[in-house]
Amino acid sequence: MKLIDVHDLRELISCIGIGRLNREVLSAMEHDFARWHEFSLSPRHVTYCQDGVIELMPCSDNEQYSFKYVNGHPKNTAAGKLSVVAVGLLADMVDGYPKLLCEMTLLTAIRTAAMGALGAKYLARDNSTDLAVIGTGAQSEFLALAMMEVRTIKRIHYHDIDTKAMAKFEHNMQGLGAELIPYDSVEQAIKDADIITTATAARCQAQLFGYGHLKPGAHIHAVGGDSEGKTELNPDILSNCKLVVEFLEQTKDEGEIQNALVDVVHGEIWEIITGNKPGRENAREITLFDAVGFALEDYSILKLVYRLAHEYNIGQEISILPALEDPKDLFSLLKDKK
Amino acid sequence: MKLIDVHDLRELISCIGIGRLNREVLSAMEHDFARWHEFSLSPRHVTYCQDGVIELMPCSDNEQYSFKYVNGHPKNTAAGKLSVVAVGLLADMVDGYPKLLCEMTLLTAIRTAAMGALGAKYLARDNSTDLAVIGTGAQSEFLALAMMEVRTIKRIHYHDIDTKAMAKFEHNMQGLGAELIPYDSVEQAIKDADIITTATAARCQAQLFGYGHLKPGAHIHAVGGDSEGKTELNPDILSNCKLVVEFLEQTKDEGEIQNALVDVVHGEIWEIITGNKPGRENAREITLFDAVGFALEDYSILKLVYRLAHEYNIGQEISILPALEDPKDLFSLLKDKK
Repeated sequence: MKLIDVHDLRELISCIGIGRLNREVLSAMEHDFARWHEFSLSPRHVTYCQDGVIELMPCSDNEQYSFKYVNGHPKNTAAGKLSVVAVGLLADMVDGYPKLLCEMTLLTAIRTAAMGALGAKYLARDNSTDLAVIGTGAQSEFLALAMMEVRTIKRIHYHDIDTKAMAKFEHNMQGLGAELIPYDSVEQAIKDADIITTATAARCQAQLFGYGHLKPGAHIHAVGGDSEGKTELNPDILSNCKLVVEFLEQTKDEGEIQNALVDVVHGEIWEIITGNKPGRENAREITLFDAVGFALEDYSILKLVYRLAHEYNIGQEISILPALEDPKDLFSLLKDKK
Repeated sequence: MKLIDVHDLRELISCIGIGRLNREVLSAMEHDFARWHEFSLSPRHVTYCQDGVIELMPCSDNEQYSFKYVNGHPKNTAAGKLSVVAVGLLADMVDGYPKLLCEMTLLTAIRTAAMGALGAKYLARDNSTDLAVIGTGAQSEFLALAMMEVRTIKRIHYHDIDTKAMAKFEHNMQGLGAELIPYDSVEQAIKDADIITTATAARCQAQLFGYGHLKPGAHIHAVGGDSEGKTELNPDILSNCKLVVEFLEQTKDEGEIQNALVDVVHGEIWEIITGNKPGRENAREITLFDAVGFALEDYSILKLVYRLAHEYNIGQEISILPALEDPKDLFSLLKDKK
């Protein structure tokens, strides 16, 4: 089985560039969401801890199976740890043998951002130039860069309650093509925004902003409202916008729509991508992609990274599966130690 | 994060011996099943493939979280591959950080066998001396050895439809303390057995034997009936024995009791271990442990192996989780490649 650790993934990204990776991930996810009915889909398995959650996210089609282990522990950052870390696995359905074990902390940030960009591709105004980034934590630069792949973003308005995190965002985003404008408040940061991406970490029912604060025609990519009791938007937005989700069965328990009736949902993103339902229909409507993170996104990026790792000869072999002369003789492993 | 691959585990077992490992696993599981209500338990997540199943098996208490990825593809052996391979992970609940990634193909065989022995400890006659092993595949030697830890087994009667697998079993079990007696048929192999362990691989509703074939007072450890449509015993046994399961919510869909009404179940094994319900009550009753494999068993063995690996300084460090100076600066991994 191949192992791709953090160093291997960095090597891959330094070979192909984050721009190409973003475009390939976006394209892989668009392709996979368009063949929605070929997948075996289920809500993720969630275990609640005192200070966070641990989730298992499986997904498969007839050929390949993937899952991700991922946590969410907002208090980790105070102890110098990431609030989200993840590990993923890809296996073949025909024999059930795992073929890739992969770091997914970085990949989760990348696929979450690419999924937001995919949503914006179908839901944001074509002439969107102003992006607001609310929450400049571990995910923020990835979100901004991916969004810049689908719209010509000229200005990035940003805000975080942690000024150190704002400085970090500014440092990382300098020279990447957009004017950077910091704000002291959420309301100011979003007032001219065509696209708003929210990724805050507090495990509570936050209200970052309401419908009245939004510019007409704005698109919201809501990232941080992604588990039971953890939401970011004023509920008045939910009933006044075109609201799109990834997988309703999961999002109804985890997304912003926890705070609304399920009938506010316009559709699942695959329905927009395939043209079964309309995306944006005019320049004034408010659109909201209530993205909680779905296992199919991990499937898409794991399959892509596996292909790229072969192409660029990246990764290590690990002996986590027994290789036996006689597959019924597992016990031989204990007898003749080679 | 620590990686324990197949070689590492072999090293650990050659340090401490399979006998001690079996005893420690049995003891760890007995301890954990006795504190049943401290765990967050759920049926495993099952994905059906054309020729098998892929399962995710999570389990946690307030301190630690474990899961196992495991497949079941009986046709694999014809292609020189194992029908079951597995990988496990152990994490801390307080921060969600994984701390161990472990081979679990061998560990699954070991914990399945130890669980069977734990069942027999409470359900088989004390004076059981004759063990029948039906199905001498990858799991069989582990099952026999573990059973020898809880009862003084003098004779092992065994049968498989694959004579090569029978020869392999004989070869592996020679000199381990029991007389080995091969049989051409299941009926002959079980007729004098005090304990019968069934571990066949066919994905069908098999009928290896019926109630009339059993010696009075026999105990059955049914291993191979472990997923939808895959059972091994004639249904007439189910209503005529004291039937014990691991976790009813899972076993009702996966175990031998698929072919019976749920009310044939005497209890869950933790109830017997804690004394809430009686185990064996006389020397003539037939007892059946309808063991499908439960996530708590993986939790117990992963936690144990993690402790032993530290004690014996076994395993490797892998860089699958990012180490960051600023936990909010995940993006730094892409900027300054060290």
